[in-house]
Amino acid sequence: MSSTINAGPISLSVFGESHGPAIGTVIDNLPAGEELDHDKIYEFMSRRAPKKDGTSTMRSEKDFPEIISGLYNGKTTGEALCAIIRNHDQHSADYKSISSLARPGHADYTGFLRYNGSCDQRGGGHFSGRLTAPLVFAGAVCGQLLEKRGVTVGAHIYSIADAADIPFDPVNITAEELNEVKNRYLPVADPKIDSKMRKAIDEARTELNSVGGIIECAAVGFPAGKGSPVFDGIENRISQLVFAIPAVKGIEFGSGFKSACLYGSENNDEFYTDGKEIRTRTNNAGGILGGISNGMPIIFRAAVKPTPSIARPQNTVDYIKNENSVIEIKGRHDPCIVPRAVPCVEAAMNIALMSYFC
Amino acid sequence: MSSTINAGPISLSVFGESHGPAIGTVIDNLPAGEELDHDKIYEFMSRRAPKKDGTSTMRSEKDFPEIISGLYNGKTTGEALCAIIRNHDQHSADYKSISSLARPGHADYTGFLRYNGSCDQRGGGHFSGRLTAPLVFAGAVCGQLLEKRGVTVGAHIYSIADAADIPFDPVNITAEELNEVKNRYLPVADPKIDSKMRKAIDEARTELNSVGGIIECAAVGFPAGKGSPVFDGIENRISQLVFAIPAVKGIEFGSGFKSACLYGSENNDEFYTDGKEIRTRTNNAGGILGGISNGMPIIFRAAVKPTPSIARPQNTVDYIKNENSVIEIKGRHDPCIVPRAVPCVEAAMNIALMSYFC
Amino acid sequence: MSSTINAGPISLSVFGESHGPAIGTVIDNLPAGEELDHDKIYEFMSRRAPKKDGTSTMRSEKDFPEIISGLYNGKTTGEALCAIIRNHDQHSADYKSISSLARPGHADYTGFLRYNGSCDQRGGGHFSGRLTAPLVFAGAVCGQLLEKRGVTVGAHIYSIADAADIPFDPVNITAEELNEVKNRYLPVADPKIDSKMRKAIDEARTELNSVGGIIECAAVGFPAGKGSPVFDGIENRISQLVFAIPAVKGIEFGSGFKSACLYGSENNDEFYTDGKEIRTRTNNAGGILGGISNGMPIIFRAAVKPTPSIARPQNTVDYIKNENSVIEIKGRHDPCIVPRAVPCVEAAMNIALMSYFC
Amino acid sequence: MSSTINAGPISLSVFGESHGPAIGTVIDNLPAGEELDHDKIYEFMSRRAPKKDGTSTMRSEKDFPEIISGLYNGKTTGEALCAIIRNHDQHSADYKSISSLARPGHADYTGFLRYNGSCDQRGGGHFSGRLTAPLVFAGAVCGQLLEKRGVTVGAHIYSIADAADIPFDPVNITAEELNEVKNRYLPVADPKIDSKMRKAIDEARTELNSVGGIIECAAVGFPAGKGSPVFDGIENRISQLVFAIPAVKGIEFGSGFKSACLYGSENNDEFYTDGKEIRTRTNNAGGILGGISNGMPIIFRAAVKPTPSIARPQNTVDYIKNENSVIEIKGRHDPCIVPRAVPCVEAAMNIALMSYFC
Repeated sequence: MSSTINAGPISLSVFGESHGPAIGTVIDNLPAGEELDHDKIYEFMSRRAPKKDGTSTMRSEKDFPEIISGLYNGKTTGEALCAIIRNHDQHSADYKSISSLARPGHADYTGFLRYNGSCDQRGGGHFSGRLTAPLVFAGAVCGQLLEKRGVTVGAHIYSIADAADIPFDPVNITAEELNEVKNRYLPVADPKIDSKMRKAIDEARTELNSVGGIIECAAVGFPAGKGSPVFDGIENRISQLVFAIPAVKGIEFGSGFKSACLYGSENNDEFYTDGKEIRTRTNNAGGILGGISNGMPIIFRAAVKPTPSIARPQNTVDYIKNENSVIEIKGRHDPCIVPRAVPCVEAAMNIALMSYFC
Repeated sequence: MSSTINAGPISLSVFGESHGPAIGTVIDNLPAGEELDHDKIYEFMSRRAPKKDGTSTMRSEKDFPEIISGLYNGKTTGEALCAIIRNHDQHSADYKSISSLARPGHADYTGFLRYNGSCDQRGGGHFSGRLTAPLVFAGAVCGQLLEKRGVTVGAHIYSIADAADIPFDPVNITAEELNEVKNRYLPVADPKIDSKMRKAIDEARTELNSVGGIIECAAVGFPAGKGSPVFDGIENRISQLVFAIPAVKGIEFGSGFKSACLYGSENNDEFYTDGKEIRTRTNNAGGILGGISNGMPIIFRAAVKPTPSIARPQNTVDYIKNENSVIEIKGRHDPCIVPRAVPCVEAAMNIALMSYFC
Repeated sequence: MSSTINAGPISLSVFGESHGPAIGTVIDNLPAGEELDHDKIYEFMSRRAPKKDGTSTMRSEKDFPEIISGLYNGKTTGEALCAIIRNHDQHSADYKSISSLARPGHADYTGFLRYNGSCDQRGGGHFSGRLTAPLVFAGAVCGQLLEKRGVTVGAHIYSIADAADIPFDPVNITAEELNEVKNRYLPVADPKIDSKMRKAIDEARTELNSVGGIIECAAVGFPAGKGSPVFDGIENRISQLVFAIPAVKGIEFGSGFKSACLYGSENNDEFYTDGKEIRTRTNNAGGILGGISNGMPIIFRAAVKPTPSIARPQNTVDYIKNENSVIEIKGRHDPCIVPRAVPCVEAAMNIALMSYFC
Repeated sequence: MSSTINAGPISLSVFGESHGPAIGTVIDNLPAGEELDHDKIYEFMSRRAPKKDGTSTMRSEKDFPEIISGLYNGKTTGEALCAIIRNHDQHSADYKSISSLARPGHADYTGFLRYNGSCDQRGGGHFSGRLTAPLVFAGAVCGQLLEKRGVTVGAHIYSIADAADIPFDPVNITAEELNEVKNRYLPVADPKIDSKMRKAIDEARTELNSVGGIIECAAVGFPAGKGSPVFDGIENRISQLVFAIPAVKGIEFGSGFKSACLYGSENNDEFYTDGKEIRTRTNNAGGILGGISNGMPIIFRAAVKPTPSIARPQNTVDYIKNENSVIEIKGRHDPCIVPRAVPCVEAAMNIALMSYFC
């Protein structure tokens, strides 16, 4: 199924096209009787909304979700929760000219093949980054339920181009630190890196270009002993959700790719106990051994490619005429989607981890 | 479900414990009437078997699978295919002493918590690298079916410690090149790197240590237009399977993490046509746009952590007594599992890609 | 998952509560490029709508679905199709008094237990017969796609109380006959039985009571060779969908329960060929052998219990106070839901059969 | 997937062909640490084995399962449990002559179409009643786990031809009564009906014919509040499993088809409380309201068609030559499979109910 996933007991559907009537999500099998704080949902979702300062697109997305089922008297009913977000402010005209010219880095051509020319390609259709709004909604809901269970998830911009934030401390990161990042203009651990990152984005925009980056995400308070070996480990479940975010092209847990250059004696996390709790002195495992949590922070990084929509002319093909051509993408586009992708990555983690409590 | 996966239409179960009677797999929903070449299956599986030269463990694993269902007159029946591999040559005594001492980097402690102390921990039980044998069997079967459909999959050691092979050419890699690698002693593209890699492994072994590495895997001939956006894209499906390999801690497609440092104008793959076929000049997308294949080689890299079993003493805890302790792991262990993990990664890719033909 | 099903490749979610903002459905994995005739959808759905003549409830349900995704230029995009139906005209006051008194035959008490008192019980909430509206929408869509593939599905009232219609001819039933039934006031094969059935319903209503019945459903044109043995046969898939209709308590295929009294020589359907097509002379198998279609009409019957909502006083308990009590159900209720359940049963068959073409 | 099912959290694969090397099952996601009594498993399975007295086939099936994974020190490990049963004593010669003649009532022709002529049709292959042995194994395992949770499941022959047993009392049936039936030669509630049933079977055998029957199955001690509305109710889950038994052609819960002739006032089960427990005075709902258990016995009946294999000549077709022909089925076949189907039905119920505890 393309846009429906069974993340353990949770079933999640994401539907909608960028320029269709609405987008939305159905989340099935959430626990019943859970109070939802709508303000917090909006707050979470607004972190995904575009900034007004030029670091991202100028579109004012009024992405207020309407919950149309699964909620009664402010509490989950235990039945499928459906939320829809109406589409507004689509400048379809902007996309008229691109017709059958494949935008490089986009799914125009592959989507055309996959759906025999029938998919709604206006604004990227179902492939649009806009489809992360319902994902973020689902993540906002799951995040609230996780908080009640003592689990806090947070993410920051690990890097944009060559501007690198201070990495999370994989052993000692706290819920407070994870939450602090969320309130910053750019979600970074070190506020001093903010200007350098904005400069990198600004330069890309000026040059009609775009930049990518890396997002780091961590969870604290997640209990040890959850997960499974082989196909349904925590890594499997998180990665299946994270790759639902259009621009993500890589994921690594704990020391990840760096572990390839380490000795076993360096990469192994030694266990110790203070008499009460068993912990590890390092956290190269990212909190996961054999697909199962070990009680340490769960931590991963996701690579986000530079926005494929850039304003400079690009060589491409007209895939219907099968002719070489040149495309100039008009419209408004983020020169860097990394800041807006941060809550998306958090959302994927939230859904994955919440699934272990359903 | 822990060890059962629905990779699209294919359902795959992996069962068994390292020191139990047998391990095996059930593959459901393969096409009917497909001839299987047993020699090729053994050949594929023997690439996962340990080498006799000290680069890996000395155990002689007679991992000949017995196919007990789903095959008739040498052809698939279309019903569930089950293969079992009997366990022999277990030196359980080697493991006696470790009892409730958590081996760092292993799932002893997390498995203990997950299954309330009931899982069979001898030799790693269900968490053992031995469980990749049935996965490789399933991959060998799927690989044969892919070959008949014009798809060739191959993988090589991209790096071990700081010894780096020549990367696959993501645009022009051929089936011949992919197959050539498979016959080498170490599966590398550049035979000259072989001795450097063996030296790195050898040094680690001498120092009672271990090393990790990176595996690169590519598929050519996979048709454009297969896959789906959001949750069931090719990246989602491959990564869910690749993370079933115990030591894998990261995966990246195409330019992957490197794309985080690229400009859009660098990372976008420009399309062109020679009048017949539409291709891209670069392949930073790894052959996947919007979760759907674009006809270019599908290419990814997986990070493999250093073998956690090392012979030197390590600090750890006795998780039943909740006491600090020191562990010395006896028994025979690979100082580097990267060479043996290469066919595992290939197997995961085979299963993922074959699922699009079922 | 409670309200999400994977019927083969189709994933179907039904969401909503009777008195919440809206109800609806998400259908994922339909083929792309299929034109949908909205008038035919409304026509199909209006067969489920209440009649104005006293045979069913007086509520005017404006159950016009709004398709908010998965459709572009009148054709399916191949992405998840979501339709929502707003709730209007709820007389919540009617239900106020029943609070924690369990209506006999309803899911008030079991739903209360299942969801720890958190489900929205107004009007039956998610358990309401109203939730069959999105099911019927999905069935209407699938029915259109089946018609294009040469498959026609139809159902009739086999019996209400002791008024029995002429059974479908399991061997020679035609698409024309199946369609003819749909246009009748009561969906029966023999119009002469209409008045007898209406009388049975009328009597029940007068006596503040209700009656049940049996629905027979058939499909013609469904190709031989589709389906699977064991768990995913056509019977398994249909029955899983038919039991989603609240009042259904039994299902039988072909000769069904009658086969228990037949000899093998009577119940076996002898094959014959006219040189072109292979058929059977009888159809006790209901068109299904070993879970797989044999090319004959697929035929089953579903038992529908009498509407549990009856106006006469009934003994029951207050399940919060744990006290015996008496309930008088106010509000407007169908004395017989069998006529309105006919398109629901058809819808379930449509979805099940269409899943074999996705 | 044909022979793999996700019954809630439990994933169950059944594999094998009647005349292949072995048949078996993989059960994934059972709880860990559950002791299994092998004698009880054999006892349960031996109830499915053929009788030696002519009421069923003379084959001596040594269906002792070998558990090859998921069990350690006599307890479940929490990992996938695999059991295999070797095939012996196949008289393939008996089946040689039938080749491409479709046995009426069997899946020869439909299986041939479904698998393009590649399935192993010897002895019915994967469609054979023999494939119920692994299902019964799985049911025997689940039954033991249910007993520990206070749930007892039992079934009896409700009728064979016109010989009818005393029905279970749907309100007051006890675990003792359910267990008592299991020890009888024919599993009936009223031992006096035994001879009449055996006579019916005997007559059928003498006349080279076969007879069908009805099986009734009940569970006591299953807690109220388990299950779900819409697609994943208890009825949906049980029926999907029961239709995996080859000869089952119908299922009804509680008053089932009889409810179609009842008034609402008759069919509704009035609730009452004795101050402690809430129960119903009748049990027409079969213990299930809105897909959820209400604490009363869960009760259903399944229709079993007469064995399709009968010794008298039958008209049929050669489906390869597309010619009319006559078939005489040689070999040894049960004139009535109802007695042997009783533990199969119980097994299906056991698996379905155990899934709510996983």
